[in-house]
Amino acid sequence: MSLDDLLDDFEAGTVSRAALKKELLRQSFIDAGCAKLDHLRASRTGGPEVVYCEGKTPEQVAAIFGHAASHMGCILGTRADRSHFEAIAPSLGAVYDEVSGLITLGELPKVPCGKVVVVSAGTSDLPVAEEAAGTAEYLGSRVERHFDCGVAGIHRLFSVLGDLNDASVIVAVAGMEGALPSVVGGLSEPPIIAVPTSVGYGANFQGLAALLTMMNSCAPGIGVVNIDNGFGAGFLAHKINLLAAA
Amino acid sequence: MSLDDLLDDFEAGTVSRAALKKELLRQSFIDAGCAKLDHLRASRTGGPEVVYCEGKTPEQVAAIFGHAASHMGCILGTRADRSHFEAIAPSLGAVYDEVSGLITLGELPKVPCGKVVVVSAGTSDLPVAEEAAGTAEYLGSRVERHFDCGVAGIHRLFSVLGDLNDASVIVAVAGMEGALPSVVGGLSEPPIIAVPTSVGYGANFQGLAALLTMMNSCAPGIGVVNIDNGFGAGFLAHKINLLAAA
Amino acid sequence: MSLDDLLDDFEAGTVSRAALKKELLRQSFIDAGCAKLDHLRASRTGGPEVVYCEGKTPEQVAAIFGHAASHMGCILGTRADRSHFEAIAPSLGAVYDEVSGLITLGELPKVPCGKVVVVSAGTSDLPVAEEAAGTAEYLGSRVERHFDCGVAGIHRLFSVLGDLNDASVIVAVAGMEGALPSVVGGLSEPPIIAVPTSVGYGANFQGLAALLTMMNSCAPGIGVVNIDNGFGAGFLAHKINLLAAA
Amino acid sequence: MSLDDLLDDFEAGTVSRAALKKELLRQSFIDAGCAKLDHLRASRTGGPEVVYCEGKTPEQVAAIFGHAASHMGCILGTRADRSHFEAIAPSLGAVYDEVSGLITLGELPKVPCGKVVVVSAGTSDLPVAEEAAGTAEYLGSRVERHFDCGVAGIHRLFSVLGDLNDASVIVAVAGMEGALPSVVGGLSEPPIIAVPTSVGYGANFQGLAALLTMMNSCAPGIGVVNIDNGFGAGFLAHKINLLAAA
Amino acid sequence: MSLDDLLDDFEAGTVSRAALKKELLRQSFIDAGCAKLDHLRASRTGGPEVVYCEGKTPEQVAAIFGHAASHMGCILGTRADRSHFEAIAPSLGAVYDEVSGLITLGELPKVPCGKVVVVSAGTSDLPVAEEAAGTAEYLGSRVERHFDCGVAGIHRLFSVLGDLNDASVIVAVAGMEGALPSVVGGLSEPPIIAVPTSVGYGANFQGLAALLTMMNSCAPGIGVVNIDNGFGAGFLAHKINLLAAA
Amino acid sequence: MSLDDLLDDFEAGTVSRAALKKELLRQSFIDAGCAKLDHLRASRTGGPEVVYCEGKTPEQVAAIFGHAASHMGCILGTRADRSHFEAIAPSLGAVYDEVSGLITLGELPKVPCGKVVVVSAGTSDLPVAEEAAGTAEYLGSRVERHFDCGVAGIHRLFSVLGDLNDASVIVAVAGMEGALPSVVGGLSEPPIIAVPTSVGYGANFQGLAALLTMMNSCAPGIGVVNIDNGFGAGFLAHKINLLAAA
Amino acid sequence: MSLDDLLDDFEAGTVSRAALKKELLRQSFIDAGCAKLDHLRASRTGGPEVVYCEGKTPEQVAAIFGHAASHMGCILGTRADRSHFEAIAPSLGAVYDEVSGLITLGELPKVPCGKVVVVSAGTSDLPVAEEAAGTAEYLGSRVERHFDCGVAGIHRLFSVLGDLNDASVIVAVAGMEGALPSVVGGLSEPPIIAVPTSVGYGANFQGLAALLTMMNSCAPGIGVVNIDNGFGAGFLAHKINLLAAA
Amino acid sequence: MSLDDLLDDFEAGTVSRAALKKELLRQSFIDAGCAKLDHLRASRTGGPEVVYCEGKTPEQVAAIFGHAASHMGCILGTRADRSHFEAIAPSLGAVYDEVSGLITLGELPKVPCGKVVVVSAGTSDLPVAEEAAGTAEYLGSRVERHFDCGVAGIHRLFSVLGDLNDASVIVAVAGMEGALPSVVGGLSEPPIIAVPTSVGYGANFQGLAALLTMMNSCAPGIGVVNIDNGFGAGFLAHKINLLAAA
Repeated sequence: MSLDDLLDDFEAGTVSRAALKKELLRQSFIDAGCAKLDHLRASRTGGPEVVYCEGKTPEQVAAIFGHAASHMGCILGTRADRSHFEAIAPSLGAVYDEVSGLITLGELPKVPCGKVVVVSAGTSDLPVAEEAAGTAEYLGSRVERHFDCGVAGIHRLFSVLGDLNDASVIVAVAGMEGALPSVVGGLSEPPIIAVPTSVGYGANFQGLAALLTMMNSCAPGIGVVNIDNGFGAGFLAHKINLLAAA
Repeated sequence: MSLDDLLDDFEAGTVSRAALKKELLRQSFIDAGCAKLDHLRASRTGGPEVVYCEGKTPEQVAAIFGHAASHMGCILGTRADRSHFEAIAPSLGAVYDEVSGLITLGELPKVPCGKVVVVSAGTSDLPVAEEAAGTAEYLGSRVERHFDCGVAGIHRLFSVLGDLNDASVIVAVAGMEGALPSVVGGLSEPPIIAVPTSVGYGANFQGLAALLTMMNSCAPGIGVVNIDNGFGAGFLAHKINLLAAA
Repeated sequence: MSLDDLLDDFEAGTVSRAALKKELLRQSFIDAGCAKLDHLRASRTGGPEVVYCEGKTPEQVAAIFGHAASHMGCILGTRADRSHFEAIAPSLGAVYDEVSGLITLGELPKVPCGKVVVVSAGTSDLPVAEEAAGTAEYLGSRVERHFDCGVAGIHRLFSVLGDLNDASVIVAVAGMEGALPSVVGGLSEPPIIAVPTSVGYGANFQGLAALLTMMNSCAPGIGVVNIDNGFGAGFLAHKINLLAAA
Repeated sequence: MSLDDLLDDFEAGTVSRAALKKELLRQSFIDAGCAKLDHLRASRTGGPEVVYCEGKTPEQVAAIFGHAASHMGCILGTRADRSHFEAIAPSLGAVYDEVSGLITLGELPKVPCGKVVVVSAGTSDLPVAEEAAGTAEYLGSRVERHFDCGVAGIHRLFSVLGDLNDASVIVAVAGMEGALPSVVGGLSEPPIIAVPTSVGYGANFQGLAALLTMMNSCAPGIGVVNIDNGFGAGFLAHKINLLAAA
Repeated sequence: MSLDDLLDDFEAGTVSRAALKKELLRQSFIDAGCAKLDHLRASRTGGPEVVYCEGKTPEQVAAIFGHAASHMGCILGTRADRSHFEAIAPSLGAVYDEVSGLITLGELPKVPCGKVVVVSAGTSDLPVAEEAAGTAEYLGSRVERHFDCGVAGIHRLFSVLGDLNDASVIVAVAGMEGALPSVVGGLSEPPIIAVPTSVGYGANFQGLAALLTMMNSCAPGIGVVNIDNGFGAGFLAHKINLLAAA
Repeated sequence: MSLDDLLDDFEAGTVSRAALKKELLRQSFIDAGCAKLDHLRASRTGGPEVVYCEGKTPEQVAAIFGHAASHMGCILGTRADRSHFEAIAPSLGAVYDEVSGLITLGELPKVPCGKVVVVSAGTSDLPVAEEAAGTAEYLGSRVERHFDCGVAGIHRLFSVLGDLNDASVIVAVAGMEGALPSVVGGLSEPPIIAVPTSVGYGANFQGLAALLTMMNSCAPGIGVVNIDNGFGAGFLAHKINLLAAA
Repeated sequence: MSLDDLLDDFEAGTVSRAALKKELLRQSFIDAGCAKLDHLRASRTGGPEVVYCEGKTPEQVAAIFGHAASHMGCILGTRADRSHFEAIAPSLGAVYDEVSGLITLGELPKVPCGKVVVVSAGTSDLPVAEEAAGTAEYLGSRVERHFDCGVAGIHRLFSVLGDLNDASVIVAVAGMEGALPSVVGGLSEPPIIAVPTSVGYGANFQGLAALLTMMNSCAPGIGVVNIDNGFGAGFLAHKINLLAAA
Repeated sequence: MSLDDLLDDFEAGTVSRAALKKELLRQSFIDAGCAKLDHLRASRTGGPEVVYCEGKTPEQVAAIFGHAASHMGCILGTRADRSHFEAIAPSLGAVYDEVSGLITLGELPKVPCGKVVVVSAGTSDLPVAEEAAGTAEYLGSRVERHFDCGVAGIHRLFSVLGDLNDASVIVAVAGMEGALPSVVGGLSEPPIIAVPTSVGYGANFQGLAALLTMMNSCAPGIGVVNIDNGFGAGFLAHKINLLAAA
């Protein structure tokens, strides 16, 4: 029973105050409330529905996108491969980015915000870096990319120092030893979101080495997300970037 | 040799262009440059010097504070015990907080910014939560504390939901299974900095369990810092909070 | 030599007391005894034979089901794929559930018992959740399913709170950070069996993150089974559920 | 503002339906609701407040017990040492058990339930086993103890087989290789709660070996709690045992 | 230069004592000596050459067997698949065992020795158990097999207790929680070689759980080999078994 | 009720065959049987009772030794410190070895057997090596010690090669990288029991490095016991050594 | 703007000293400087560009080689498979080594240096050993190979002792227990680079066992590179070997 | 029997060739040979005896130093505390360095060699850095120290770039995230020995984070030693540095 129905009945006297309170208590008005909450959230954060495509069949992804197209108008698919994209009805106008594995549908209302800079260490980190960049972009952030800036050739970082310091927030993506965020943190001002990638081999342990490096950074001002979690970094970067527009 | 001296000599003809270029290349003008960079950083972030006291002798800490008092006027000491504090000359007017282990000296210039909310799970997480709160406060942020809000009694979180959503950034501190940031992330809008603590025993592995939980949160918008790293969380929170004043 | 034969011979005087005692000691009467024990167990727990199909050839599984059909009438196959099922003689009337990978044969005698509620976090946890639900159901429990109730959208849990508290025992299935059982444990009364799943990536380490989370839950009243072990959870849940009928 | 006040104002027309709905949504009525929930929980489970004493000062523990004595009448302290106990006002009549480290205050209303059997492997596992037994007992369960029944002398288990099978639920406590629950699970009917202890050395890794053993048991019907978590096992056992009285 | 040649030259005076000593020192006479050592070893232990086939091409394995056939007459191949076997010239008369993955060529001289009993927990452990049994048999030991004796049905162990105690050495093979050697160790006299297998899933971590269990056994008299190392166990068992014939 | 009593009653007709069988089944005659089994074991293996003193109070150890002195005449205490020893009544004549931490009481009947050689890598491994040597000696084995033979100075091993090859079984004790058993295994014939010690630091991880080394030895014929488990190695060595006397 | 242009403008008075200093500071003259640095590095170390081919498409590798051929003349590709090689234009004259997976293009200027000896344990370590040897060779080092010298047959090491001691630097490659570098370190003088390989199974954990062994070597003078990192070892060996020519 | 004695007897005809060969084979002439080898090693590397003092009693260390003083004249003690030093007879003239924990006795013959640069990240890394520097110095290397050059303030590294590139070999010491060697490796030419330290907390895992970082460095030319192993790094650095004098 919806909140309005409940209150109608309460006003009509067909539901007693005790019964109303019991029902409010039992449901915490979440069935009604949370749809609203989600609605509020979406309009405030510019956050669309997000579907993690990996492990879902193309048919499942296509159905979700179809549903989203008719109900919400926009949706973001992550970790999608080409078969996921091809199953989606072309008429929906979804767009697929091969590198990041993102499928986007619709356009989110533009929000005023600052600039996100995504900096990455090696070319193998590109998919994760692009997932972060593409996510933040789709959510409405202005994104600047500086890829292939690993610490083994630290001068590449120096050449983009000005751009890093102009950002509201920096996303630093690195595999192998994952030292990039530490070095960026020693050279620049903005808050940093560090993304370890699983790029590497041997004692890298699928990204664990980079994760621990980033966790232990001697430069403060760094928050870390899960290994290969470009989406999470882009999402968090956008949330922070929104503050820059306040 | 300073940059000005070098350029003087270059203009005076006592240093050739080749020699100047070689010197610029060799030094990258960092001796001069970085002092400036650090100066700029301090004035922009309001960030004082920070000294990690754990493992230092009281005498060492006292000397650093003495030096800071005469040169910079303000400094933050972290993970200090009472003996560190007592070694510092009382005339400096340093202040010690027993719970967080922070020693503060001087006052930083106030900067316009938003609100940091620090929420923690259990009473044992208090020292880490206070380290985060005290750090952000000293740096100039307005900080609101909501402690003892662990997920085992989730209604405590609901009662502060409004406050959480008013924050520019939330610091969520939890030990044991570390589920608090996930639940907060499912209920609120601001970016979240998650701090795992080493509170727990057995398969907690000194905070590893909470760290992994926070890394794998199904709620996006969460960046994680090292186990027990309240200082890092407070520092990052303040950096993000500064954006809210832009 | 059977126990009866031994006792016959003892009474007939052809086996001395010393020889009888030696034989009893050597065999511990297990050859005879344990067949009985197993028989008793089956009739008391309603527990059929269970065969773990993964790693077995379709032919092996078919042979086991054939044998079970003629001797016991009922058997449960777990982690079966379609090829296992198709190898079983259709005349046996075995039933295959694609999602949970369970093959069931025959029907167990109904036993009076309470209700098992299986609650799971995400759609990817479905196979494990269904393995738990299907196992408990086949063993004779009444099972109620509430799937897709992850803590990132905690209101979904609130909407089923009443159902959770009506259960004799709750099975809570979650991957990624695995916070669901903690939150359920903070909101409901019945004993909880927590099942970590291997859903996730990166620092999830194939379910280790969820396992540690569940081990360290700050909410008491939770027992944990192995990663992805839906069968084990369903089996244990049924054992507990049987108590509710006492 | 309380729910009643809100509804009064709504009926009085001083709060609009829109404002009421917004307030309901914001608060989820948890301030009122959850206090009730907690009250219900206590009366249903017979569960007292529990305070984890380790890491708390004697003064803190004494204060909590004093507060509990005047408000609730009963409380359970776990992992307490003698100094915790001695700080509590003697007039409260709290009782301390040196082996289990439990401090109990007051008596819980008796509830009808079955029997919990606690079985442990070695004498070094005694504190954990007693913590489990004492917890279940204080909560109202009838508890039977069979200690020093490790698998290295498996006949000791056989001698108590009858008692094990009479239990509603078995708590099996073991360190070192932790094989006890597997063997008990192969010999008895009731659901089993397995408690790994940190007893051992070397490749035991503070209980990890026993934890993994119990997680991987080939005998179904076993749920595992954290290393050394006797309280958690006793609490869960009591919850299950309550079903036996239904 | 061989030792004999060197000594010839020394006697002939064409090599000085200093030069002889230097050469002895440099070579440690290992070129000559170790061939002898290896020869001695083979004749004493009855140990043939052993080739680990996994990771080698069929052609490589075929070449090694061809060489062995003409020079030594006998050789053992481990972890071979059918393609390895089929590449070996049929005329050599090598024999392949599909379950254990062993290829044997030739027959070793019979040596007097005791009996090796190989006992294993589940049917999935069969390949490892057969590798152990087949290795010991090929080396010349008398081997008795008791498979499918896992601790979940401990009566199966009791029925073979007499056979276990007749062995010179027991090889106990188990995956999952790996409790079998502990239980066998509590029930029987002979030295035990424990072999953890990678059978299991989840928190089994590819045999780590069983390995740790066996390492921490509370029953003394157990030595452990690597996960899935049936060959190593069979080899060590035969070495021990040879003592029984002394 | 003892087996004899039961059979008396059965013969007297006061216990029916059905009742007798039920009782046999219920008890598996273990109460009677296992005492005998233990008796047989002791007389066959020469194995005394063993008490692990670490974690026990001096009073507990003294009581156990007192009981053993009057009932069995001999007992072995492991991991004892001086306070354990000093609590034992001097009149019992127990002997304490400071290095190995062994307390021995009484003398076991001599059994014919071969020779155990204990070889260790460094002086820090001495306590573990002596625990192994002392245990095997007390059990009745002839033991030869070759300490400080680490692979960093491999010539030390060569000088004792003859002695190694004369052994029935070799116990090889090593910390740090733990390479000793591999090298010994490449140079000698007898079966080898490898004991990793916790000697080392950093990436040694309290003996894990040595444990893994020994597990992965490329030389076959090696069984491994737990880190620092000198007692286990000495016990197993004696069991193997007994075969050499057959 | 280049440094020369800047200085021209400064001398011409069109750029003020303040502006020059700001620009120097901003760029750190790295755009200009680092190209030079890299140029200097290449000419000093004889180090060509290196491209890690694994994970790159054949087309990407071909493009990089094409670019290198026209600009630098020489380049090294590592971890390449045949498809990478075949995509490179044959006219470039690149050479592929199947075993090591190295593709080489062009010839580096010869530099005077000593000798690198690469010694490896087993045949399965060959690819890693050849990657090390081939890398050092391509960089200009004289390389001597001694493969299949594992410690299980230690005499093989003795036969090459003279060659080991003639080296400037030794690269020791081993999988399984990885004891080779320790033994080599105990027998020879030159600095040693240890390369753990992922050869092994079970408790080898993909090379972790060998890595830990090498880290904990009791023989000093050993530096370790990542698991399977033959390229890194060859590169470091060449750097050290260059010193021998000073 | 010495080699000379053996050859005397062989020439005198009192030892047959067969007996001589057997003896050579048995002993591998190691008793004689290795003493020489060790002598040769010492004279070539300038390497003194080294004693690891940690875990040894002051008396043991004093005895070793006393013996070394009279036989070899020089010895190095590592990880010594003041009590070790004070137990050594003052007349020996040993010197103790409190920071590094090194005790040195005597002076080694000077050898021509290059320069070792030790660079470290933080002040807490000082003891390890000094252990490396002091070890290399005592062995005869010229050592230059640049401490407190962590990557969080990367300009400090730039100011010493010239010195780094003048070194024969660089020792880079860092705790926490351990990124220093990677950054140094991207900026300088000499071979680098990386030393992870246990400085840090939480997810640092006592130096594991820094160790993994260094293992996975994207800059080639780096060899890693054990956590906190300053001695090993200094020893290896000296070995490499000796090449620079060739």
